[in-house]
Amino acid sequence: MTLEEEVLAEIKPTPEETQAVRSAASELIEGIEDRARRAKIPGKPLLVGSVAKDTFLKEPEIDIFVTFPPTTSRDDLERWGLELGGVLDNPTRRYAEHPYTRGLFKGYDADVVPCYRLEEPSARMSAVDRTPFHLAYVQEKLKEKDQVRLLKRFMKGIGTYGAEARVHGFSGYLCELLVLRYRTFRGVLEGAREWRPQIQLRLEAEPERGFDEPLVFVDPVDGKRNAASAVSMESLSTFILGAREYLAEPQREFFFPKKPKRRNRAELQKELVGRGTSIIMVTSSVPDLPEDVLFPQVRKAESAVVDFLSSNEFEVMKSVPLLFEKEWRVLLELVSGHLPPVKKHFGPPPWLDNAHDFIMRWRTSEDLVRGPYIEGNRLVVEIVREHVAASEALRAALPSLSLGKHLVRGVATGFSVLEGDEILEEGHEDILSMFLDRGLPWDPTR
Amino acid sequence: MTLEEEVLAEIKPTPEETQAVRSAASELIEGIEDRARRAKIPGKPLLVGSVAKDTFLKEPEIDIFVTFPPTTSRDDLERWGLELGGVLDNPTRRYAEHPYTRGLFKGYDADVVPCYRLEEPSARMSAVDRTPFHLAYVQEKLKEKDQVRLLKRFMKGIGTYGAEARVHGFSGYLCELLVLRYRTFRGVLEGAREWRPQIQLRLEAEPERGFDEPLVFVDPVDGKRNAASAVSMESLSTFILGAREYLAEPQREFFFPKKPKRRNRAELQKELVGRGTSIIMVTSSVPDLPEDVLFPQVRKAESAVVDFLSSNEFEVMKSVPLLFEKEWRVLLELVSGHLPPVKKHFGPPPWLDNAHDFIMRWRTSEDLVRGPYIEGNRLVVEIVREHVAASEALRAALPSLSLGKHLVRGVATGFSVLEGDEILEEGHEDILSMFLDRGLPWDPTR
Repeated sequence: MTLEEEVLAEIKPTPEETQAVRSAASELIEGIEDRARRAKIPGKPLLVGSVAKDTFLKEPEIDIFVTFPPTTSRDDLERWGLELGGVLDNPTRRYAEHPYTRGLFKGYDADVVPCYRLEEPSARMSAVDRTPFHLAYVQEKLKEKDQVRLLKRFMKGIGTYGAEARVHGFSGYLCELLVLRYRTFRGVLEGAREWRPQIQLRLEAEPERGFDEPLVFVDPVDGKRNAASAVSMESLSTFILGAREYLAEPQREFFFPKKPKRRNRAELQKELVGRGTSIIMVTSSVPDLPEDVLFPQVRKAESAVVDFLSSNEFEVMKSVPLLFEKEWRVLLELVSGHLPPVKKHFGPPPWLDNAHDFIMRWRTSEDLVRGPYIEGNRLVVEIVREHVAASEALRAALPSLSLGKHLVRGVATGFSVLEGDEILEEGHEDILSMFLDRGLPWDPTR
Repeated sequence: MTLEEEVLAEIKPTPEETQAVRSAASELIEGIEDRARRAKIPGKPLLVGSVAKDTFLKEPEIDIFVTFPPTTSRDDLERWGLELGGVLDNPTRRYAEHPYTRGLFKGYDADVVPCYRLEEPSARMSAVDRTPFHLAYVQEKLKEKDQVRLLKRFMKGIGTYGAEARVHGFSGYLCELLVLRYRTFRGVLEGAREWRPQIQLRLEAEPERGFDEPLVFVDPVDGKRNAASAVSMESLSTFILGAREYLAEPQREFFFPKKPKRRNRAELQKELVGRGTSIIMVTSSVPDLPEDVLFPQVRKAESAVVDFLSSNEFEVMKSVPLLFEKEWRVLLELVSGHLPPVKKHFGPPPWLDNAHDFIMRWRTSEDLVRGPYIEGNRLVVEIVREHVAASEALRAALPSLSLGKHLVRGVATGFSVLEGDEILEEGHEDILSMFLDRGLPWDPTR
């Protein structure tokens, strides 16, 4: 049995499992139809997602879209959608393009999502409303469903599966399109071995506009859309590398990576001291909003923090945005958290009229340490550095940085900037173990 | 009395002083003629330099060129030139384009320099051989000799006087040309106020080729030559700034700057500790060669050291090349002399064939600390840093850096790399006081 046959045997649902989820889905649809009929709600439930396309792995989720006529008001669509979602056990309200319901049904995770029923996919609509067209296309074209299963598992293993903001990777639909394009799991990897950003892939549909994302897959149901628009340069790079490395030496760890070695506090402390760098963690609270709304803002906060530190001459080696239920964090590693109390400040070339002002401003300044002097063709002064410690600088500046709007209130209410041992004292062994992880996800020796 | 009249009164030789140096020069010429006649040497002495042009300041130097027919062999020219130089007291042999003699005559410093007597200045010849033509030109054209005296004193005051390698500034001849071009000392400054690199100035002569130096003054006796070719960007910038600042507020300190405040050892130590930076001094010996041969090599060594440190991620704030009779030194100030024991090392993008080699090479390396991982579109590893201390790095690398050939042997024989307090323990109060000097040379408040 080849490695891929072995993996497939592990991930493919048995006929019994398939039968069970399908009958649960049918029962859920009947329940929604029943409730719609009784409440006179004009919504029609449709099974979508990997169960509908038969590309699901073990422990699938049941995705139901409830389609409404285009004439439905947005208010009605949202209200009715949530009412029908009430058929689920433990229903909770979630937000995407429209509010929807997540809950349980017969032990399966299940979503009930309202959308508009449109006549053709190129009509102006949201990504959600396009889903039924994607479903119909895949159901008609896709034969090699097990190849999609392998590809999805591979993507999960190397960390590139999912279009959500946390991953910026490959959606299930994109995995299906890739198998349609390249026929097999191996075919996709062999294709990816030759990819360079920006690469443009397509099936029969012609692109109807220009795209500038690192990976473009022209959506076969809408030539104006890039089905790979979520894929970041980093995810694309990771997938290309994973494909090349897997083809050179296939290993089980590409599908099922080892977890990062978990270090205890003493081990972490030893490792961090050995690195000789400065670790800083910024933390503040988040409001109760969907991850896909918040995560981009955490990324934005990460950029703002990194840019602030860089512009204050602190060299950031690595930064990681983190989002948990109640708070966001940015973990930062700096070459040094401290800089000397003096810094160089460049002025104009001597032949500009503001050269004189520059000299006059600085030569009597209390902040002047050395200079003015000329270096090459520029005036230079050395002045007192405003922030000698990165953590203090961040504490002073965080509230005025350009953070996402949903993070601003949390920061105004309170935030913390911890450094070195202070982070360890709070625990965070998992985060730090992941941060210090050695090796690519599929490296069997890590 | 204006400031400039006051300064002129101080720097201009009295009629008695002028008479004295002229008669000493005549006597020296007669002495050389006499010795040439007796030894049957076909050289004719010629008074050149500022005494000949009447643009000298107090304590002038007597410059005698001895011209030989173009048919003279180089060997004869050098041998005869040195023989005639023997008329000086305490003669020592120096080297420029030809060997020449420096000594004393009647208490004045004096040079006796052999050169070829050429028919016209555009003939292929050395800078030395062109000097008589410069002399003739200035003697014919220059009326405003006191304006040259003021300009020279100003140049000395702000540190831009002299074409030699240590200064890379404005020669006496260039000062004379500037006064011919702009008529007066103030005229030169007003002109310089409008200069931008690269500026091209000329008198009647048309340029006969393109020039790319920051300042160009087409030599009136040879349109192919830039009489300002020695002027570095830094000297040009300093002169432009000095001119602008003097015109805005004329002060005596432009002509006679205060010396840098001399700090004693305790003061220096306090100041250096307060800066929080790392000071390093590299020292090695020099052979007995002219400053104009050695100084460019010290600059080259300075660049090599700075480049080496920068490429090892040590940030150099400032560096100074120093040349003394027996040794050269480079004084360096680094943001930090120490870096963490781990460093980032970028590999190829994943889609290049050497990506696999990069992973294989590093993943089992003892030097690997973290990674490989992907950042954007590049593979990255974090590895053990070779040099965590800049001084140790320099100690290990100095002999293999690209130093000037005259410094190589000294470094092979021995060198030192001192850091912080080690420098203070050796003294060097003058160097460090100059290094820490605050303010432009003409700043009266420094």
